[in-house]
Amino acid sequence: MVKRPAKHCPIARALELVGDRWTLLILRDLHLEGPQKFHELQDSVEGIGPTTLSDRLKVMLANGIIERRFYSDHPPRAEYLMTDKGRGLLPVLKALKTWGGGHLS
Amino acid sequence: MVKRPAKHCPIARALELVGDRWTLLILRDLHLEGPQKFHELQDSVEGIGPTTLSDRLKVMLANGIIERRFYSDHPPRAEYLMTDKGRGLLPVLKALKTWGGGHLS
Repeated sequence: MVKRPAKHCPIARALELVGDRWTLLILRDLHLEGPQKFHELQDSVEGIGPTTLSDRLKVMLANGIIERRFYSDHPPRAEYLMTDKGRGLLPVLKALKTWGGGHLS
Repeated sequence: MVKRPAKHCPIARALELVGDRWTLLILRDLHLEGPQKFHELQDSVEGIGPTTLSDRLKVMLANGIIERRFYSDHPPRAEYLMTDKGRGLLPVLKALKTWGGGHLS
């Protein structure tokens, strides 16, 4: 039995940021569809509510996993896209897809 | 914008089972330490409470990601270990480790 403080474990640190299904599903759709508007994500991420989506996007922006780009100033309209740091999570999505496809069909 | 029903998406189906940090941290410790008793997991998975640990183990058992083995009948004493299906998630942990080590140090 070994204590594994989160701050010393890269898996625990990663899961503090992306250890919820919504964050990874948002990344899935930004990867598959490219830059997305808020309402597009709300449609494509099945079951997510607007408050949860807004909260997750804020955390992802704050942590540099996604960025926001304004495509209209008047009125202000933004879309969200993956950063390089966010793209670094694609192997996680790929591994989940392999496992989900192989074990949960 | 594409609707992606969870039942048709292997990533979403996978995240329904393992899309929380606790499940993946429990798997991390069963992988690193081998079969573990309840109190050992409670010590090694930093911050998990006994109710949450008990709930997660039940769901993981029900879904065949771990199994339970009794090593004493009187009194009944059990330990938990990964199944082949659970070991199929090791690439997910590895990808999280790589990302956490590279982007969150």
